[in-house]
Amino acid sequence: MAPVQGSYDYDLIVIGGGSAGLACAKEAVLNGARVACLDYVKPTPTLGTKWGVGGTCVNVGCIPKKLMHQASLLGEAVHEAAAYGWNVNEKIKPDWNKLVQSVQNHIKSVNWVTRVDLRDKKVEYINGLGSFVDSHTLLAKLKSGERTITAQTFVIAVGGRPRYPDIPGAVEYGITSDDLFSLDREPGKTLVVGAGYIGLECAGFLKGLGYEPTVMVRSIVLRGFDQQMAELVAASMEERGIPFLRKSVPLSVQKQDDGKLLVKYKNVETDEEAEDVFDTVLWAIGRKGLVDDLNLPNAGVTVQKDKIPVDSQEATNVANIYAVGDIIYGKPELTPVAVLAGRLLARRLYGGATQRMDYNDVATTVFTPLEYACVGLSEEEAVKQYGADEIEVFHGYYKPTEFFIPQKSVRYCYLKAVAERHGDQRVYGLHYIGPVAGEVIQGFAAALKSGLTINTLINTVGIHPTTAEEFTRLAITKRSGLDPTPASCCS
Amino acid sequence: MAPVQGSYDYDLIVIGGGSAGLACAKEAVLNGARVACLDYVKPTPTLGTKWGVGGTCVNVGCIPKKLMHQASLLGEAVHEAAAYGWNVNEKIKPDWNKLVQSVQNHIKSVNWVTRVDLRDKKVEYINGLGSFVDSHTLLAKLKSGERTITAQTFVIAVGGRPRYPDIPGAVEYGITSDDLFSLDREPGKTLVVGAGYIGLECAGFLKGLGYEPTVMVRSIVLRGFDQQMAELVAASMEERGIPFLRKSVPLSVQKQDDGKLLVKYKNVETDEEAEDVFDTVLWAIGRKGLVDDLNLPNAGVTVQKDKIPVDSQEATNVANIYAVGDIIYGKPELTPVAVLAGRLLARRLYGGATQRMDYNDVATTVFTPLEYACVGLSEEEAVKQYGADEIEVFHGYYKPTEFFIPQKSVRYCYLKAVAERHGDQRVYGLHYIGPVAGEVIQGFAAALKSGLTINTLINTVGIHPTTAEEFTRLAITKRSGLDPTPASCCS
Repeated sequence: MAPVQGSYDYDLIVIGGGSAGLACAKEAVLNGARVACLDYVKPTPTLGTKWGVGGTCVNVGCIPKKLMHQASLLGEAVHEAAAYGWNVNEKIKPDWNKLVQSVQNHIKSVNWVTRVDLRDKKVEYINGLGSFVDSHTLLAKLKSGERTITAQTFVIAVGGRPRYPDIPGAVEYGITSDDLFSLDREPGKTLVVGAGYIGLECAGFLKGLGYEPTVMVRSIVLRGFDQQMAELVAASMEERGIPFLRKSVPLSVQKQDDGKLLVKYKNVETDEEAEDVFDTVLWAIGRKGLVDDLNLPNAGVTVQKDKIPVDSQEATNVANIYAVGDIIYGKPELTPVAVLAGRLLARRLYGGATQRMDYNDVATTVFTPLEYACVGLSEEEAVKQYGADEIEVFHGYYKPTEFFIPQKSVRYCYLKAVAERHGDQRVYGLHYIGPVAGEVIQGFAAALKSGLTINTLINTVGIHPTTAEEFTRLAITKRSGLDPTPASCCS
Repeated sequence: MAPVQGSYDYDLIVIGGGSAGLACAKEAVLNGARVACLDYVKPTPTLGTKWGVGGTCVNVGCIPKKLMHQASLLGEAVHEAAAYGWNVNEKIKPDWNKLVQSVQNHIKSVNWVTRVDLRDKKVEYINGLGSFVDSHTLLAKLKSGERTITAQTFVIAVGGRPRYPDIPGAVEYGITSDDLFSLDREPGKTLVVGAGYIGLECAGFLKGLGYEPTVMVRSIVLRGFDQQMAELVAASMEERGIPFLRKSVPLSVQKQDDGKLLVKYKNVETDEEAEDVFDTVLWAIGRKGLVDDLNLPNAGVTVQKDKIPVDSQEATNVANIYAVGDIIYGKPELTPVAVLAGRLLARRLYGGATQRMDYNDVATTVFTPLEYACVGLSEEEAVKQYGADEIEVFHGYYKPTEFFIPQKSVRYCYLKAVAERHGDQRVYGLHYIGPVAGEVIQGFAAALKSGLTINTLINTVGIHPTTAEEFTRLAITKRSGLDPTPASCCS
């Protein structure tokens, strides 16, 4: 194998212009490779929503989500401002179309910056859908027709798209997060089906914006996350008036004469059926890897449950084909993971580097109205790995100083550290529910990677008054059975 | 010496019921000591402002400051809400009296909780001003008269109060942070004299609340902080319309017939004089340790520049007398430092512990409109300690995602890491200007204490989209001369 460089059109073709693909393509060029990057977005089935380069994160993921979350928090802030003495009229309404327009304008500007960046960095951008002819040849379907291109190496970074349930009316009448951020009408009363982070985040900002979301949960909330924290997040949403339909699955969606959507659903334990009428039905039941259009059998690449298994070098079972980002099997689907993995892969391929991606201890945040962020192991995972007798959980409720004047609920402001019980009490995981959770946890993620112990944590001097300092005040173990409600404020 | 326990009224008398004193007193009781805690607040000279137990932080420091800062940020948030589509009337005004009332109500509730906490924990609280008779005897001046009390051990934790300049009219017409948070009238056009963190924070929230602060600076801004960051903070305040009178000192304050204050001042370099009229003059020129009333010569305790020098065990030159908190010489004047030092001291005195307070790498935040937080060494201090050739500074400007829609200035959103140049590239200091700076830096303080290196920092996976993740994206060194303006958003 290993053909002479130059006998192919490109050294590297990256399939997918999202976070992973772009990071990989740009880094490969920086390291001297000739690179093309294919990107193509299939329109959504019902509304035909599509978008530009940049992938899920920029167009229909983190960025619009965070902006809508911010809009929702700013609505809360208006009420808080009144409590702090501002003579603001608290009877406020959102302008959905203005919000969507603002969000979309920002996305367009990012798309544009991305295009310029690719041009500057000499990555050839091809707006086309790629499918393998063989392991070195790709057929790219472009607007202008088809084009066959070859490369020594391929990186598959096509990511995923939301799933639809297999029930009547799902595709015809339901939407997904692919449509929500550009929806041309107010969502109104919305059924959010699914209680993963996407479902909860969407329900959270819809409520904050004054709409009426309901969350339908088949089994557990925030699967894969610490379940004590997950239930606190759900409870904090219920406290804000978001109903959760537990143990329920949808059966069908029908459009009524008045244009509203009749959803029939059942309780999976009792089999009892029920129905309700909504303006919008949003599927947030998981995401599917975009393997179907790639014609992977032509290249010989193995697939597992819509995803592509890779080894610790992000190599697939085919020697010259790699995969990074959300398309890979069994790894966190997160932008910064995709970016770093893509970049490290390019450095290994073209820069002589050896560093591999470390998929452990990746911090993440759920941008629900009261946010949740964590890094490292959940309590259950720590118990599973080390045994309940070998871990110590420090925990506490706390009261953010800023919450007092507007009398915001502090009921679910809670944090915990999961640690080794004996020895140095190495910290395995940190969990925090409260304001600006991502900002709070990021530094602690660096601390965990630096070998943080409980002794170091509680001897780190706090920054007062912050909520992050509560981690330095953790003193009560679950094992002690002591009351974890707040100590005094400043002594 | 070492008299039998029980021959004194108390094992320990703590003089001062602020953060340090309360933490020390409560911990001493937990460890079996019989403890009294004296607290007394002298009214301010002009307005006669006084307050309850809890010290500076709760009553006239961190807590009211953070609440007024929050009020100011919420005013900004109302304008941002409009940009995000909320139909809010942006012509808002603060209600100063309502704000003060809300802040004071919160403080009163904390005072009350503190009193209850002291009672629960069996600390005898004495509302009196203490002065030494000898090294084991204190004269306490109470409302009801005088009382002589004895103890085996004393902890001096009297803290400090703002200084007044020695110029005509300073005391008669000026106020300090001791008065501001309970001021019974709007501050209006305010001259803030002093550009330490207290001056900048007060000027910052006054501007945010719609008043007109001017900052007068004799020499440098934020002395003791990294000066590049300090100047960026000042510039960000100037951008918001807060004038800085540089190289200037006040000469006199006179009250005009219309009640306004005429301030004469001069430029210290040119000796040129000028004057202006203000509604309020706020002195923020530094704080003085409250040694005067203690009659320290009677106990033989040494004083240095209004402060008390202590050794690494917080012991003064007199064997049974210790000092903690803002009253000690040459250490950071910060609540969490005081709390931890006080608690550790009590554990060493009564719990058989040996751990000493580590005053290094203490993180702190300046709550200016655009906040600044840091931990570890400033760039100048790192240069001084290691030499310019031995340090590497990684830096970058960044654009918070939430700033785009309301078109907030990103000009001063900047961060840097000061690190070892060679070897493991141990991180010496981290500096961040931007939103929720304290929340961002706290975890990194734990990371620094855990031995954070640049390699670990840049391999920590970011949480997207946050501003804290920008630390994980630091790639440009000052030495390289490359442009530190932002890279693309999500790849």
